[in-house]
Amino acid sequence: MNEKIIVFDTTLRDGEQSPGASLNFLEKLDIAKQLVKLNVDVIEAGFPISSPSQFEAVKRISGEVNVTVAALARANEKDIDSAFEALSNTSKKRIHTFTSTSDQHIIGKFGNEKYGKNLSDKRKTILKMTYDSVAYAKTLCDDVEFSAEDAGRTDLTYLAEVIEAAINAGATTVNIPDTTGYTLPGEFGKKISELRRLVKNIDKAVISVHCHNDLGLAVANSLSAIENGARQVECTINGIGERAGNASLEEIVMALKVRNDQLNYYTSINSKEIYNSSKMVSGYTGILVQRNKAIVGENAFAHEAGIHQDGMLKNRDTYEIMTPESIGYTKSKIILGRHSGRHGLAKRLQQLGYNVDNEELNKVYSAFTKLADKKKEVFDDDLRILMGDSIKKDTDYYELNYLQIISGSHSIPSAVVKIKCSDKIFEESSTGDGPVDAVFRAIEKGLEIRPEIESYQVRSVTSGRQAMGEVILRIRGKYGAFTGRGVSTDIIEASAKAYLSALNKKEQNLAQYAKESENSNYTKVV
Amino acid sequence: MNEKIIVFDTTLRDGEQSPGASLNFLEKLDIAKQLVKLNVDVIEAGFPISSPSQFEAVKRISGEVNVTVAALARANEKDIDSAFEALSNTSKKRIHTFTSTSDQHIIGKFGNEKYGKNLSDKRKTILKMTYDSVAYAKTLCDDVEFSAEDAGRTDLTYLAEVIEAAINAGATTVNIPDTTGYTLPGEFGKKISELRRLVKNIDKAVISVHCHNDLGLAVANSLSAIENGARQVECTINGIGERAGNASLEEIVMALKVRNDQLNYYTSINSKEIYNSSKMVSGYTGILVQRNKAIVGENAFAHEAGIHQDGMLKNRDTYEIMTPESIGYTKSKIILGRHSGRHGLAKRLQQLGYNVDNEELNKVYSAFTKLADKKKEVFDDDLRILMGDSIKKDTDYYELNYLQIISGSHSIPSAVVKIKCSDKIFEESSTGDGPVDAVFRAIEKGLEIRPEIESYQVRSVTSGRQAMGEVILRIRGKYGAFTGRGVSTDIIEASAKAYLSALNKKEQNLAQYAKESENSNYTKVV
Repeated sequence: MNEKIIVFDTTLRDGEQSPGASLNFLEKLDIAKQLVKLNVDVIEAGFPISSPSQFEAVKRISGEVNVTVAALARANEKDIDSAFEALSNTSKKRIHTFTSTSDQHIIGKFGNEKYGKNLSDKRKTILKMTYDSVAYAKTLCDDVEFSAEDAGRTDLTYLAEVIEAAINAGATTVNIPDTTGYTLPGEFGKKISELRRLVKNIDKAVISVHCHNDLGLAVANSLSAIENGARQVECTINGIGERAGNASLEEIVMALKVRNDQLNYYTSINSKEIYNSSKMVSGYTGILVQRNKAIVGENAFAHEAGIHQDGMLKNRDTYEIMTPESIGYTKSKIILGRHSGRHGLAKRLQQLGYNVDNEELNKVYSAFTKLADKKKEVFDDDLRILMGDSIKKDTDYYELNYLQIISGSHSIPSAVVKIKCSDKIFEESSTGDGPVDAVFRAIEKGLEIRPEIESYQVRSVTSGRQAMGEVILRIRGKYGAFTGRGVSTDIIEASAKAYLSALNKKEQNLAQYAKESENSNYTKVV
Repeated sequence: MNEKIIVFDTTLRDGEQSPGASLNFLEKLDIAKQLVKLNVDVIEAGFPISSPSQFEAVKRISGEVNVTVAALARANEKDIDSAFEALSNTSKKRIHTFTSTSDQHIIGKFGNEKYGKNLSDKRKTILKMTYDSVAYAKTLCDDVEFSAEDAGRTDLTYLAEVIEAAINAGATTVNIPDTTGYTLPGEFGKKISELRRLVKNIDKAVISVHCHNDLGLAVANSLSAIENGARQVECTINGIGERAGNASLEEIVMALKVRNDQLNYYTSINSKEIYNSSKMVSGYTGILVQRNKAIVGENAFAHEAGIHQDGMLKNRDTYEIMTPESIGYTKSKIILGRHSGRHGLAKRLQQLGYNVDNEELNKVYSAFTKLADKKKEVFDDDLRILMGDSIKKDTDYYELNYLQIISGSHSIPSAVVKIKCSDKIFEESSTGDGPVDAVFRAIEKGLEIRPEIESYQVRSVTSGRQAMGEVILRIRGKYGAFTGRGVSTDIIEASAKAYLSALNKKEQNLAQYAKESENSNYTKVV
């Protein structure tokens, strides 16, 4: 008989910690709603104590989705209070508290003598912290998850003690993370089965795993853990996350589905929403999916070699172990044109997982009609790109009013820009090494700034000749790093918009911190 | 005691079959030489019967590298003759012949009654084909590898019969491919151990595995096979290949290395060449590596979350199970400036794995000095990008002589181009939806063509403000699809160059086919 595996999605927490990814609140809310359509069991929405914006995101998301929302907290009362407060809008709340248990982490993070003079003393301190923090969380909330960070490298006997203490204190889920992506499938599976043997009260909690992909084994480790008794998997869309990322949700779900003959487990996931989810997360985070990524890569269902195509024509089953339809991938087709109305647009956006209110619909419809004027055919991917553009932005400080470019192989590239900044208008021109450089210099002269441009990516993902270009740009100045996006059929205009969008993110952030800097409830973790 | 695992790299064969990847001969030769530096044991250089260019590539590569080169052939004499002939330049040759063995493949590919009236008859035919083709290859060459395509889904008893026949006929390596990426690690490992039990003569051959990544399990399956007796792994740089790709060389190698405490095996791989190899393959194929790819992704050694950075500062070991240095990754640093000489450039290119002759060095040095004029600091990645540009091109039919762009938010984008085409010069202008579109239209008007633009990618991978843009573009017309690349600090110019480079590839191909179309030795497989 099939047993259920709980899918705990941490795209909005561990995934958002990926270097280069940073999501604003509206983007997070869209992703959360898409995760509901995907039918995940738990959404980890953030780490409330770490920043005001994390706190706000958890608070607002948990108020809007009817699914269990988890909030992360270190093993102390202040963190747990913050997580609990951030979850005040929902009854389906889970406090997720953690502490490190491996020797490497104890030495690295609890080196201070106040935690004990030697490793043995420090271990006792951590054991007590575990019990106390879970017990405290339990006074606030029934659903408490405890994670033993770096459990993959933690001594088995000590790990069993910690887990037993957590369950004694009331943890209903105990998570065994392979934080550094170090373990091998057989080894990790055995760790789970050994814990089931050693931890006396193990039947009182769900065993969860959280695998990282540093050696490319996160999915295999998760499956091995399931076969050995884990009943919750923590994972992310597209496998994003710290370093090489987390176990990829789509790979775990499809492996369980395609190989149900061997793996007698099921998830509640609606696999037809996988493709939409993947596209939304890559669009919003700017972390592109490589062509040869399993399940959701551009090539996953493509067959190049003639010898294969021949086989494919004769029998699709020859090289395909699952259909593209099963993950909701259908070849991008014409769905809207210039005569499509607001209603048609709103409906299609909803099918693609985007939730727009009236004001947003006005903005996106206006962008859509402009695009439909240029492109006769507007594809799903065009809409996804539009949604990744300015639609989801909060108030914009800077706005591009005018742009002009002269460039060529034998001329000096030059740019003229006009930028609206609240009620003022800047006008500036500059030359540069190329037209993009000229535009950036003109913006910088006008605004008297000179940040470092950390990365500049362009992608053209839409179909047809008048493909839209999306520019994703990351700047770093004294206030930190900010990622901006811009979209246009004109790549130079998209670049200018992306630059201003990064600057807008900076301004929003400064404003937020100014507002909340007096608030001592936040520990600056990030 | 550690046992050696033979690393069989198929980047140039299965990897090059990735949709969108297509390498010219010089690029293949560079990759082959880099694979030698990486110290792989076997290079599969191509599938000679499939096209004249594949044949030539195998022939020339095998003459230039002092390592075993394998050539692929279906299980028939014509294919095997072609493979053998293509390997005539080397004494270290391996003929790699294959046939399908799973029911799904037999039905899909051997449906014709001439192979037998029912499945049982067809299986007998394939068994005989296996024996005959290996025996024939053995008359030409000592080192013969046999692959049972889709072995992952093949009935175990029948698979054992086929493998036994192949070894009886003289196969020295028997490969068990999971062609469709269907198996699970435990299941696949068991298949290998069962084959060792069932195949009487199994000790006379090396067991090899070739895993695909459709469920994200290729690396785990390869490791499981090794633990159960496989002593050769087939893999590719960056895991490229058909659909979701092959097992990634770097992940297998580093898993064996980092977890040598559990896995008592070693490879001959020089892991410090992994990063260079990855960069070269992504540069030449245009298949970008996602940020969160294990081992070689941009984020693999990056740590974003404050909580992690804190741990990192205290103790690097906290979150890092291997060092970036172990794969040859060092933060891109200034290595050359405008005053660097040809000698310094040549030396650095060699360190990065690029082999340039004098003529190529002239071309790349000229491009380098132009770039050094614009950028004060030239980074390793800049050089990699330069090498991905026109340096490695054969004769160019089309050349960009002049380009001019006027564009802006309130004006109609327009472009003027002048293109040299052997001794003629075309001059044309056009408007467009954006400056790139305008340039493309101008080129198309001048040359009177109108191919489909299948994909258009831009990346800016170099560091600093005057980052170079690389455009990778794929066009499809009645002669097939061609990928072109262009590089410039001006993204519009890079786009124009990429378009012409794709057209140049088309012309080269047409010329080659015209030259060799009378040659009946080639079966058009692709």
